[in-house]
Amino acid sequence: MAVTGVLRPGFIQIRVMDLGEGIVHYRDNLGLDLVSQDGEVAFLKAYDEFDRHSVVLRQADEAGLDVLGFKVLTEEALTVFAKRLKGIGVETAIVPAGAYPGVGRRVRFSIPTGHTIELYSEMELSGNGPQTKNPDIWRHEPRGMRISRFDHCAVLGVDIAASAEIFEKALDFVVTERATDPEGNAIAIFLTCSNKAHDIAFLTGPADAKLHHASFLVESWNDVGHACDLIAQRNISLDIGPTRHGITRGQTVYFFDPSGNRNECFAGGYQHYPDNPVREWTVDQMGKAIFYYEKEVHDRFTSVMT
Amino acid sequence: MAVTGVLRPGFIQIRVMDLGEGIVHYRDNLGLDLVSQDGEVAFLKAYDEFDRHSVVLRQADEAGLDVLGFKVLTEEALTVFAKRLKGIGVETAIVPAGAYPGVGRRVRFSIPTGHTIELYSEMELSGNGPQTKNPDIWRHEPRGMRISRFDHCAVLGVDIAASAEIFEKALDFVVTERATDPEGNAIAIFLTCSNKAHDIAFLTGPADAKLHHASFLVESWNDVGHACDLIAQRNISLDIGPTRHGITRGQTVYFFDPSGNRNECFAGGYQHYPDNPVREWTVDQMGKAIFYYEKEVHDRFTSVMT
Amino acid sequence: MAVTGVLRPGFIQIRVMDLGEGIVHYRDNLGLDLVSQDGEVAFLKAYDEFDRHSVVLRQADEAGLDVLGFKVLTEEALTVFAKRLKGIGVETAIVPAGAYPGVGRRVRFSIPTGHTIELYSEMELSGNGPQTKNPDIWRHEPRGMRISRFDHCAVLGVDIAASAEIFEKALDFVVTERATDPEGNAIAIFLTCSNKAHDIAFLTGPADAKLHHASFLVESWNDVGHACDLIAQRNISLDIGPTRHGITRGQTVYFFDPSGNRNECFAGGYQHYPDNPVREWTVDQMGKAIFYYEKEVHDRFTSVMT
Amino acid sequence: MAVTGVLRPGFIQIRVMDLGEGIVHYRDNLGLDLVSQDGEVAFLKAYDEFDRHSVVLRQADEAGLDVLGFKVLTEEALTVFAKRLKGIGVETAIVPAGAYPGVGRRVRFSIPTGHTIELYSEMELSGNGPQTKNPDIWRHEPRGMRISRFDHCAVLGVDIAASAEIFEKALDFVVTERATDPEGNAIAIFLTCSNKAHDIAFLTGPADAKLHHASFLVESWNDVGHACDLIAQRNISLDIGPTRHGITRGQTVYFFDPSGNRNECFAGGYQHYPDNPVREWTVDQMGKAIFYYEKEVHDRFTSVMT
Repeated sequence: MAVTGVLRPGFIQIRVMDLGEGIVHYRDNLGLDLVSQDGEVAFLKAYDEFDRHSVVLRQADEAGLDVLGFKVLTEEALTVFAKRLKGIGVETAIVPAGAYPGVGRRVRFSIPTGHTIELYSEMELSGNGPQTKNPDIWRHEPRGMRISRFDHCAVLGVDIAASAEIFEKALDFVVTERATDPEGNAIAIFLTCSNKAHDIAFLTGPADAKLHHASFLVESWNDVGHACDLIAQRNISLDIGPTRHGITRGQTVYFFDPSGNRNECFAGGYQHYPDNPVREWTVDQMGKAIFYYEKEVHDRFTSVMT
Repeated sequence: MAVTGVLRPGFIQIRVMDLGEGIVHYRDNLGLDLVSQDGEVAFLKAYDEFDRHSVVLRQADEAGLDVLGFKVLTEEALTVFAKRLKGIGVETAIVPAGAYPGVGRRVRFSIPTGHTIELYSEMELSGNGPQTKNPDIWRHEPRGMRISRFDHCAVLGVDIAASAEIFEKALDFVVTERATDPEGNAIAIFLTCSNKAHDIAFLTGPADAKLHHASFLVESWNDVGHACDLIAQRNISLDIGPTRHGITRGQTVYFFDPSGNRNECFAGGYQHYPDNPVREWTVDQMGKAIFYYEKEVHDRFTSVMT
Repeated sequence: MAVTGVLRPGFIQIRVMDLGEGIVHYRDNLGLDLVSQDGEVAFLKAYDEFDRHSVVLRQADEAGLDVLGFKVLTEEALTVFAKRLKGIGVETAIVPAGAYPGVGRRVRFSIPTGHTIELYSEMELSGNGPQTKNPDIWRHEPRGMRISRFDHCAVLGVDIAASAEIFEKALDFVVTERATDPEGNAIAIFLTCSNKAHDIAFLTGPADAKLHHASFLVESWNDVGHACDLIAQRNISLDIGPTRHGITRGQTVYFFDPSGNRNECFAGGYQHYPDNPVREWTVDQMGKAIFYYEKEVHDRFTSVMT
Repeated sequence: MAVTGVLRPGFIQIRVMDLGEGIVHYRDNLGLDLVSQDGEVAFLKAYDEFDRHSVVLRQADEAGLDVLGFKVLTEEALTVFAKRLKGIGVETAIVPAGAYPGVGRRVRFSIPTGHTIELYSEMELSGNGPQTKNPDIWRHEPRGMRISRFDHCAVLGVDIAASAEIFEKALDFVVTERATDPEGNAIAIFLTCSNKAHDIAFLTGPADAKLHHASFLVESWNDVGHACDLIAQRNISLDIGPTRHGITRGQTVYFFDPSGNRNECFAGGYQHYPDNPVREWTVDQMGKAIFYYEKEVHDRFTSVMT
């Protein structure tokens, strides 16, 4: 029992159109550490993560999401989840151990919204993760946006109910918040596998396989403000923020990496437990749901969704 | 899988020597809501909790801890945990449903350090918990110390290894941090059943059944400072703080309720996952472990421990 | 020497279309204290101000600014300033002592942008101001938006250079920041009589005598965020924010009182000294100047300016 | 009028026993910029200061305060102040322009508590000060403790009333707060030449010419916490904090440079105006006056004072 199944979003693999620029952005602006680079792929991690890497940048012709990887606790759990996926008709493939440095075998599958998901249970510990012997709060003062962890991502597609159902039925995720149109169709579904308000979010859009944003954790509202200062001073492309979400209550700023992938710095959000009621939103309140202060969603935000 | 076992510390029952004073302190200083009062017992809750109550104050001749209650997800889980406790030789008793308002049957047991623990799966939802329909971030602006949740407690006793073992073996808690003396005896054990850095902490002391502190969650370092402002301006008895813990990295202030029970306002702390290594502390670094800034533990703090 | 001339913006008199609603907004949302009400006029103050009142609300048929009052140190200084105003051709009138409760004589004059300004040196101390004998940090925990002071205001008009010149030449204000179009015309002039980044700001607009906003001081970025939470949860009309200004570097949120007067919660801003160079802005950078994060000025903001 | 006399504490010259170590501390821990080094003297400045330098470190056999320098607005003001000092019997000497790089002539004098004070009106602008043309909020992200300015210092001596009187009578400083023993003797006098709660503080001690602390401005309580994190993680010698002062209401942490000079990171404090009443403290409330949370002054703090 306890947290024994899917632990967390463990890594995200993002396509960037210029790997060098991408590395500079994620390392110097977000403040991640560059772990290794192998040809057209670079591996990075945040200071408060134990595992070898959590962000994979892959040079490509267009931006977007390659893979979202979820870590599970054990190889046994991995086997069980693979069976449960097959049991509900989801085909899986195995990426062999070592395909990426320090990572064990990965169970890969696609979901109805066209996204590629991987489960894995083994990744090398970083030599640069949190200390474990009379630890200091960090080895080095966090820099840039002071990202502590890769937190979650939100993805776009047509049949989000079908994708969410896989996470619920096969992977034991729990819905924390849901927005529904008057016909009862889900237009946003937020799910968690932990005590976080969300570990993955699905948003309705006309095209599949899209990334809405990759989100990174910062400590507080103060660090959201600091991220905004850096965004402005370094001429990083701002989307919106600082602001707060109605859904999750998180404090946030959205901006773009040099290839146009949307990033988020996220702080706060409530603690969720599986005995909590689902928070339900109606479509007329989507402004408040998405941007609690502005109570409306700006064109650029929705244009990415359409 | 997922979070399906023990969910969280759900309530704490504290003895106070003057119930009226106790209510005033927990309601007006901490900012909890008084839910109901029944003779010598009062029930309170924090604004961000869904369940009916999380703090029970009982009038008594001396201060201290009556019971620490942990909520589990289902009645089935409750039955399983009761069996597992018996399986390792822990006697359990049943407190029948309704013994306290809105609470289902409770499985009660004692641990080697003399503390009474209860498990339960049913508690009425509060009519005053977080909104679930197009919710605002809160119904009313938080007041006083702006406590959002009862978070955890730390207890004192002789054989803490034995008590911690029950939480590990029967209840699937995970050790996050541990301090050990040169002979290998545990002098502090921090355990979690969630993604929090701790849900319960055991500290070595010469006497059993003691409460070290009941801890309440605040949003940020800023609210720790605000709590200190209130403590000073209202002449609440300060123990120590604002400061930071080495263990958990939490930001903290300790103070006393009118009966002398130690309270904590706690913010921050890392996210924990069961694949994370245990953080280990040596006894010569206990100052840094407990108070990261001061790097020493003051007399009043340890005198409570002896 | 030292600060011996004009001390600060001491009060603002604002027209509201419903005095009751206005009182509720400034008292409960901003967190000011209602000092007294006399027919169609109400007097309020912030918790950290010594003087009797700093905000005067007057019931009227349309919203706007009646008077901006600046306090000077002594009656002698008041006489000197009146002479200096006359010396540069500004007509003055005297509002006799006691015309408003607790306030000495006021030297009233108009400036080219059509605004009415008053100077005065005497106002009763409030019985509810900061303590002076072994003081606590406040008498009562600040409430609502936790406004500590009336800070400054920004006004709109055609010939802002002429109005600013009066503040410089007769009242010893110093320009801290200035935005200029390619022809060399000032489009924004920020002036201080203290160490604040501004005590009054002039913005170019097609109509005279307009108030752009009345600004109130909060402690920090954290309290700017808290103000935004209240604005959202209480459905107060938001203009823009939370954000940061390029000019002054202040952290800010703009919103409207029930009559449509724009209010600001303002935190931060640099310390200014009269030996500091003037910060100069070009018109193509006005977006960054006004809203450092967004780098553009939204329509509603400029529509008020036109 | 306005701020036309003494502007601010412009520089502090501190003796350190190892110049290299001192530079490392003030540059890397406090986050100042090293401007130049000339043999046994090093010049530093904070990122938000326009002038060439604000901290001078001088290699010497023992730690302590060499000089506290106050900047005045003009050479004319400097001449006037020199005359006023002589007028009340204070001998002055001239340090010629250029004695230190970029600094004009300095009027030097001693005060009864044995401290050396200098007035000056000319110092070169730094090439690395705040931008003045469409400025960003900073050129480079602040580092270390993120000090924005040298703020003030507190000095110790026997006849503090006599020293304070010179600042009041000759230099137009205003007393903001004062602590007095039952016999009416001042035991602490806080004075300002600006809107800050203090620009210099005198504390009673048995020995003259002592520095209590050199204080540096940080933006907020959050940055006080960050300074504490650095102090702990880098094993900088902590004195006390984070805490709040009753006097000035400032949020603070005290620590020592490698030579034993006490430094302070200071945030907040009220805005002061010369029409405000003096805040008066009685000796029995000195604990609350100095450390508002602890309400007592620890031995190490007072031992430095004796």
